[in-house]
Amino acid sequence: MDSTSPIIYVVEPYGGSIRRHNPALPLIYWDDAAVTRGDGVFETLLIRDGHPANLQRHVDRFQASARLLELPDLNIGDWIDATRQAVEEWAGLTDDDAKCVWTYTRGRESTGRPSAWVTLSPIGEKVLRQRLKGVKVMTSPRGFTIDTSLPGVDEATEGGSPEPAPWLTVGAKTLNYAANMAALRYARSQGFDDVIYVDPRTGRVLEGATSTVITVRGDKRIRTPVPGGEVLPGTTQAALFEYANAHGWRCKAKDMTVQRLLDAESVWLVSSVRGAARVTEINGHRLPAPANEKAVRELIDAALGAE
Amino acid sequence: MDSTSPIIYVVEPYGGSIRRHNPALPLIYWDDAAVTRGDGVFETLLIRDGHPANLQRHVDRFQASARLLELPDLNIGDWIDATRQAVEEWAGLTDDDAKCVWTYTRGRESTGRPSAWVTLSPIGEKVLRQRLKGVKVMTSPRGFTIDTSLPGVDEATEGGSPEPAPWLTVGAKTLNYAANMAALRYARSQGFDDVIYVDPRTGRVLEGATSTVITVRGDKRIRTPVPGGEVLPGTTQAALFEYANAHGWRCKAKDMTVQRLLDAESVWLVSSVRGAARVTEINGHRLPAPANEKAVRELIDAALGAE
Repeated sequence: MDSTSPIIYVVEPYGGSIRRHNPALPLIYWDDAAVTRGDGVFETLLIRDGHPANLQRHVDRFQASARLLELPDLNIGDWIDATRQAVEEWAGLTDDDAKCVWTYTRGRESTGRPSAWVTLSPIGEKVLRQRLKGVKVMTSPRGFTIDTSLPGVDEATEGGSPEPAPWLTVGAKTLNYAANMAALRYARSQGFDDVIYVDPRTGRVLEGATSTVITVRGDKRIRTPVPGGEVLPGTTQAALFEYANAHGWRCKAKDMTVQRLLDAESVWLVSSVRGAARVTEINGHRLPAPANEKAVRELIDAALGAE
Repeated sequence: MDSTSPIIYVVEPYGGSIRRHNPALPLIYWDDAAVTRGDGVFETLLIRDGHPANLQRHVDRFQASARLLELPDLNIGDWIDATRQAVEEWAGLTDDDAKCVWTYTRGRESTGRPSAWVTLSPIGEKVLRQRLKGVKVMTSPRGFTIDTSLPGVDEATEGGSPEPAPWLTVGAKTLNYAANMAALRYARSQGFDDVIYVDPRTGRVLEGATSTVITVRGDKRIRTPVPGGEVLPGTTQAALFEYANAHGWRCKAKDMTVQRLLDAESVWLVSSVRGAARVTEINGHRLPAPANEKAVRELIDAALGAE
């Protein structure tokens, strides 16, 4: 599956040209703020059946992230064009799903112009395996606490206000994932596949390292921790809630403890590319497969397909 | 001053070759963890009179950062060789100081090999101006609080333990500076030059956005907030303390409030390249130049020169 060569399109930040970049050549300059300071934002999309899934929600969050970091306004039409060109090219090579990443950075210090590009690449074996087999999870404190009493933090993380506490990047999906990657490395070294962050003061479940937590109960009830503050609003969770609500499920954002996860009929980590990965173990406690595992999976797949 | 072209040397991570890279060409690939996740570490050094200043402390912190992120061991001799080659080249072009950055990232997802490079570039006009004229500062909460009750956090931030709370990157100088950059942008938009972070719960002064805070009192006393937790240990502050202690000053790490800053005879932000920038205003309160301004400046310059 990893055999298809990646496809890269560079987007001229101020509109106009989109150009294909050879993935065998370096792309980013030494003085790009992405590399020197992690100063940029990104979105990861699933490409399935020739289309970017859940496109509008990714567009909205991408634009909100760029605004929060005071990056120049995005010419979103160019990003969608570049994505469609890349998808068309991909479809000529394979029917497989692809992982699409949009990256928008403050750009080169020497030019002051932002850098912008779209990549399409194969979905890794590990992700495909976790989709099928689920994930063993450890819970962990995040190691830091976001001060949600500051003005605008809640609004910002809900994607709402364009005027958050202006020195914060909370709520923006920035490139600053070193801590999350460290947590995942640690989890893997301990025999786990993923991490669920928990607030150690309150016991409140926050989110996965790169995913949103949801629980399912048999009477068609789905729940997720309240987004905002330390919980980045999930695009996949939002798509699921909208679709599921329209199909007879009752979905609610409500805080929960780890005990609530253990008591649920099933727990899932949802994210764009992996989709829904069922949590099969939490801190060594097995979570057996629910009777409706197939139905839940189909629900989530349908929600992602429903643009 | 900005006219000298940057010099880049790529360091082969597993030893051996060092090669010059043309700065007019892109350097980093689309799938480098530096670009996709901010997953890497760096050091910034001052090059003065043909030498990297304060070299050993930068070496130590660079290696500590890499260990904290579980990057492969550095072949530090290669980094020093690459730096010396670049410095030699620089010295052939100009007598000006240079800014040297070492960057070490987890590297390309497709190869699994870390990326490593050294850059030398001119020091910006703004930095030179702030060295001379000082900086107007606003204080700000950081917006998040590091949980220092977790095992190993204090040791890690003091560069001590190789076994910190393993899912944290606290204490490592990672590429994740988006929040600090946002704070600086906000400060500039309000007419300030820089930011000093303050813990809103305790009023404790933490650090500058990219520097260490020190205060000076006339009877040859220097103080800095206790490093560790939310205060990255500063290489310049450490060099200053060692040199000043050996020259009749009394230096101490001790926590302080903003009021203590306002009451000091002088307040300085110290960092590798800018050196010592005197704080001329805090939140609009003027801090007049002390009688010993020149002596303090010479002390810090001498400390940086004293390898």
